[in-house]
Amino acid sequence: MKAIGVTKDGDGPELLDVPKPEPKAGEALVRTVRVGVDGTDHEVIEGSHGGFPEGEEYLILGHEAVGVVEEANDTGLEEGQVVVPTVRRPPNGEENGYFERGEADMAPPEETVERGIDRAHGFMSEYFVSEERFLVPIPEELAPRGFLIEPISITEKALELAYTSRSSFHWEPESALVLGNGSLGLLTVAMLVEEMDVYCLGRRDRPDPTINLIEQLDATYVDSRETPVEDVPDVHEAVDLVYEGTGYAKHAISSVHALAPNGVAALLGIPGPWEFEIDAGTFHKECVMYNKAIVGSVNSGPRHFEAAVERLQELPEDALDSLVTRVVDYEEFEPAFENHNEIIKTAVSFE
Amino acid sequence: MKAIGVTKDGDGPELLDVPKPEPKAGEALVRTVRVGVDGTDHEVIEGSHGGFPEGEEYLILGHEAVGVVEEANDTGLEEGQVVVPTVRRPPNGEENGYFERGEADMAPPEETVERGIDRAHGFMSEYFVSEERFLVPIPEELAPRGFLIEPISITEKALELAYTSRSSFHWEPESALVLGNGSLGLLTVAMLVEEMDVYCLGRRDRPDPTINLIEQLDATYVDSRETPVEDVPDVHEAVDLVYEGTGYAKHAISSVHALAPNGVAALLGIPGPWEFEIDAGTFHKECVMYNKAIVGSVNSGPRHFEAAVERLQELPEDALDSLVTRVVDYEEFEPAFENHNEIIKTAVSFE
Repeated sequence: MKAIGVTKDGDGPELLDVPKPEPKAGEALVRTVRVGVDGTDHEVIEGSHGGFPEGEEYLILGHEAVGVVEEANDTGLEEGQVVVPTVRRPPNGEENGYFERGEADMAPPEETVERGIDRAHGFMSEYFVSEERFLVPIPEELAPRGFLIEPISITEKALELAYTSRSSFHWEPESALVLGNGSLGLLTVAMLVEEMDVYCLGRRDRPDPTINLIEQLDATYVDSRETPVEDVPDVHEAVDLVYEGTGYAKHAISSVHALAPNGVAALLGIPGPWEFEIDAGTFHKECVMYNKAIVGSVNSGPRHFEAAVERLQELPEDALDSLVTRVVDYEEFEPAFENHNEIIKTAVSFE
Repeated sequence: MKAIGVTKDGDGPELLDVPKPEPKAGEALVRTVRVGVDGTDHEVIEGSHGGFPEGEEYLILGHEAVGVVEEANDTGLEEGQVVVPTVRRPPNGEENGYFERGEADMAPPEETVERGIDRAHGFMSEYFVSEERFLVPIPEELAPRGFLIEPISITEKALELAYTSRSSFHWEPESALVLGNGSLGLLTVAMLVEEMDVYCLGRRDRPDPTINLIEQLDATYVDSRETPVEDVPDVHEAVDLVYEGTGYAKHAISSVHALAPNGVAALLGIPGPWEFEIDAGTFHKECVMYNKAIVGSVNSGPRHFEAAVERLQELPEDALDSLVTRVVDYEEFEPAFENHNEIIKTAVSFE
């Protein structure tokens, strides 16, 4: 079958001929419908994140997928059922406590692999197989946008950690600052605008499709070149929630200064080492005197996928239309991996 | 009446003659039994934290108190009832949402004063008055050690925030690192040792009474000069919980590197500004990839005092005897404010 992947010798994504996978006991064969592309894919392609499956010369890309059950095999699924796969799997098929508890998202990197990212093939192929427990059934009408469920689930988990961290006292967030106007940041803006005032930080000039989408959602665009994160309280307002989706370490540190008393910053970006000077004393004191919190969040678990299925149905269709700037056929996949200002979110279609 | 306080012109604590306070409607008059001394008192005396009441030339010290109701006035308290006062009060008597909700501990500094610390007289006097809602009744037999209830409540709140932040997933902490072998750190060691393996970090040579107490409690002393915070995982083990009670900003940053996956660092110290270089990229990445959290915590609310009343009754008496190195009479209070290695916790007696 055809798959889009990277090879150890190659230079960027290519169309590969790979064996069609055969489902083992407990696994279903899924025919891929669409697979989204995000910043993590670009990191995998660059080689800055993730890695190849052990003993293999290639990695099939793609972790944001939606498909249709082709062969239910011995699972409880039905053929024709639309499903979204979760991303993490036990390494070498060896179960551990995180997977047993349905909390694969809480596993440290040593105790999990990630399909399409780290040491396991992804879903950007005509077919894939998966254990039933890692396939989330979704309503059929969500199939065309089903590849958005994985990224939405990432934010569902981060918000769960953030809200839970504030649940021992009265906390009703009225404002949020989303750091990053990539597709995940913009999805998060769409998720939060019904609940609170949302600011979204980027570094783009108008006209720009991400700024248009931010404003279409009634959020406020903040240009970080004019208003750095720590100045947001003076220029706009101190925010109850910061959602960091940039992987830019200066933002992670500055987040604390953008927070209102008792606020929380959820960190999701994954930077490399970067040394610089900070006022660690003030950072520390702000956390304590104002009861502020920082929660790191990676990946997402089954309940976050289920929440994301609900959420996708609530998000405004016109905003989702603006978000998904292009769906390309897998045989002409190259534009899906381009990276320029006119692209927000792309997907590869296998239909 | 006599009170121990600092004056704007003075140089350290002194015995003052001040008017005996008269309870207003809703307030009781309390005869002071004992008042503990802690690091915050030393900061107030140095002038690095807190401030004088508006328009006054002196501040009565003391925020860790226990007393006996002398005049119940129109409150529901009974004369002779042993009580512990909470620390925060609404500024200028003007109620705000934090106090209305019983969450004064979540108020930012602008919306609260702190008795004995910041803009309100403390309890280190023969008598004090307080509204009934800020007086926590305790069993009579706890009176001699009742001054420990306030510091225990500080840790109860920090642990509540820490545990709550991890409550959206399976989290059973098996190890903790307490940063700081001051009296609050040692009380926290005593509170945690029943539940998990505890390491307590200090920078003292043996023989030392704090190291003795750490080992009396079956905890492990970590000398930060040999084993910096970030080396604790290699030398001992990565810990599920860090409790920072030093106000040393390098520890706050290093905490993240001492944590096991999904761990949480509770920060309680209050440093001044301090700029230095950190690897913020690795700090940020560790938080994300390992779902780590940081929670700042200040002060404590009524439910934390109530938990502390229970907790005090569970702590081993011999450890408490070792902790309280001296109780001095208020007329000869000076040794209570000395700061040397033989002193762990002192209290001033008004009986």
